[in-house]
Amino acid sequence: MHFVERQKKLQEAYETLLSRKNEKVAGLSNGICDRYQFPVLTAAHAPLCWRYDFDPVSNPFLMERIGVNAVFNAGALYWKGKYLLVARVEGTDRKSFFAIAESERGTDGFRFREFPILLPETADPDINVYDMRLTRHEDGWIYGIFCSERKDPKAAPGDLSAATATAGIVRTKDTYNWERLPDLQSKSQQRNVVLHPEFVGGKYALYTRPQDGFIDTGSGGGIGWSLIDDMTQAVVKEEQIIDHRYYHTIKELKNGEGPAPIKTDKGWLHLAHGVRGCAAGLRYVLYLYMTSLEDPTKAIAQPAGYFMAPEEDERTGDVSNVLFSNGWIADPDGTVYIYYASSDTRLHVAVSSIDRLTDYCLHTAPDGFRTGKSVETIHQLVNKNRQTGKI
Amino acid sequence: MHFVERQKKLQEAYETLLSRKNEKVAGLSNGICDRYQFPVLTAAHAPLCWRYDFDPVSNPFLMERIGVNAVFNAGALYWKGKYLLVARVEGTDRKSFFAIAESERGTDGFRFREFPILLPETADPDINVYDMRLTRHEDGWIYGIFCSERKDPKAAPGDLSAATATAGIVRTKDTYNWERLPDLQSKSQQRNVVLHPEFVGGKYALYTRPQDGFIDTGSGGGIGWSLIDDMTQAVVKEEQIIDHRYYHTIKELKNGEGPAPIKTDKGWLHLAHGVRGCAAGLRYVLYLYMTSLEDPTKAIAQPAGYFMAPEEDERTGDVSNVLFSNGWIADPDGTVYIYYASSDTRLHVAVSSIDRLTDYCLHTAPDGFRTGKSVETIHQLVNKNRQTGKI
Repeated sequence: MHFVERQKKLQEAYETLLSRKNEKVAGLSNGICDRYQFPVLTAAHAPLCWRYDFDPVSNPFLMERIGVNAVFNAGALYWKGKYLLVARVEGTDRKSFFAIAESERGTDGFRFREFPILLPETADPDINVYDMRLTRHEDGWIYGIFCSERKDPKAAPGDLSAATATAGIVRTKDTYNWERLPDLQSKSQQRNVVLHPEFVGGKYALYTRPQDGFIDTGSGGGIGWSLIDDMTQAVVKEEQIIDHRYYHTIKELKNGEGPAPIKTDKGWLHLAHGVRGCAAGLRYVLYLYMTSLEDPTKAIAQPAGYFMAPEEDERTGDVSNVLFSNGWIADPDGTVYIYYASSDTRLHVAVSSIDRLTDYCLHTAPDGFRTGKSVETIHQLVNKNRQTGKI
Repeated sequence: MHFVERQKKLQEAYETLLSRKNEKVAGLSNGICDRYQFPVLTAAHAPLCWRYDFDPVSNPFLMERIGVNAVFNAGALYWKGKYLLVARVEGTDRKSFFAIAESERGTDGFRFREFPILLPETADPDINVYDMRLTRHEDGWIYGIFCSERKDPKAAPGDLSAATATAGIVRTKDTYNWERLPDLQSKSQQRNVVLHPEFVGGKYALYTRPQDGFIDTGSGGGIGWSLIDDMTQAVVKEEQIIDHRYYHTIKELKNGEGPAPIKTDKGWLHLAHGVRGCAAGLRYVLYLYMTSLEDPTKAIAQPAGYFMAPEEDERTGDVSNVLFSNGWIADPDGTVYIYYASSDTRLHVAVSSIDRLTDYCLHTAPDGFRTGKSVETIHQLVNKNRQTGKI
């Protein structure tokens, strides 16, 4: 195919993809949220100009010069009339970085800005960065907290995989200029660190996920909470676990805060991920919980089990059996757009509402921690339906 | 959508699913057994009354209140004119329990009874239960043996995953009232324990799967056999391995008895699972073997390799790359319904016959344990076909 013809076809295919309408999946959902037909961002959404050298002299075959492997785990923010996603974009070289895609609708039409974000480095450069959580804080800044990985200096000789995980911090007032702040200082490694949107007792508050030897006696850890004096020199002094892990639950092995919680009149609404092990590796699912407006460290609703788990094509990808979310947006009318990635490969949207999500949290039975309790809960519901239901 | 309209649509969709006819997969099978188009049980088969609160006051959005994640690994029994499956039903909370679905045909029309089984607990309550094997024993009882998991009291602090596996035992005479007997006592943990249908030398006989440090010198263990004095106080005293694991076979890492064996005039017909490791985790396949009617500890046929392995949509699920079976039913005319689950997610049926399955066992070459032998076997068959075949 001639260069010019190929260029035209590439551009046509790209525009077709970006202008594709996205509809709710047909049929009845479980009533809690609705999935959509197509992912909102994939590797194919990466701009052609990031990938192709369009000079016939230096790229006579018009081949892809820079490969994009996947686009997933995005932070999310409604900003100046647009739904804005700070996506994790991963090249074929396995390095991921951040790039902003925006749309005037929440469910389709996302288009990347011309350049990915040129993230300022610290004195110890990030080897890889991923999973930014965005928080529009009441101090006037938009903060982004992400995981920065570096080679573990204590790795055994010949071990090329051992890495350290640290929370990197940036902030912006315009979503174009990102100021890098010093990394979060903490006794343990940190992933899934999220900034609470409001001051608590005059301090910043972080959701954390203490790792590596940090054991809250008897519980094995979970999602932590820490008050921070100054985000420009953020230090975790004390950590308290606010959402514990438990044996034989969907968060037996690991859990972590998703995006920053949404404030509702019934409490703070949280989206998190839970992980268990199985014969095929780890399984990541999403769950919800709520904390008190008066005391955000106090759980007021902990519905049992997962809220969303991999389905259909979501089940497979670069890292199969994974749903993950670090971004959601609530419209003023209460509509909630949940941006979730499947199997570390592509980004989807599910739509619900504040009313539905809080109703789910407040009226789903908590975990009974053993099979007998789960059966008891079903028996209660069948008996209630016998008495009051129309069936 | 209005409550009443949504309720009507939910009920219609449910009835459509349950009345769906299931046909043999089109095209030629390998002649050993035939798969069917649709699973016989899935999460969507769980009764709406287990999942939805149909009271508009307490569930205004008509959302699912109790999520069912998967229905799989079922014990099976023909009982009073019906094909009866004791399925493993797993909630979104990860706890599984048992529920009976029945049909007048073996391949479709399975419908759950109104309530899941309220399994009596022992003094040490089960945290999770799964994979019941049903045996109609000549003592007049129907026994169910299942795996009961509990948190390992010796788990390291912070390790929330370590569990113990014990064989739980129930029995019934009517499939409605289940009497819990004391758990099987054994030196090692036990999964995949199955009761042989007949007395052997006046004793009960169990197929076992000794774990944790039990190594039959030189073999690494496998499917065990143990004679039991009293099922109401069942104690494993001595265990002998009757179906060994071997290097570089489909049962290199683990194996376990499936449902109770079927008595045929050529021997006891066994269905089992074999496990190997790979870069994507464990791979579970199904295999067959036969033991002697005179001495059920003696293998008389051990066809090489698997009999069924994951295909097409069976390959993916909550725990991908898994086929597992703990239930089959033989009709008086010799038809055999094999209920097998794929990837810990849904339950299928495959249909064969006693004649086909015994012919397969008795006329498939045993494992030669190395590639050269496998090639030799093919050469022998090609040469035989040259001489006697019509090809």
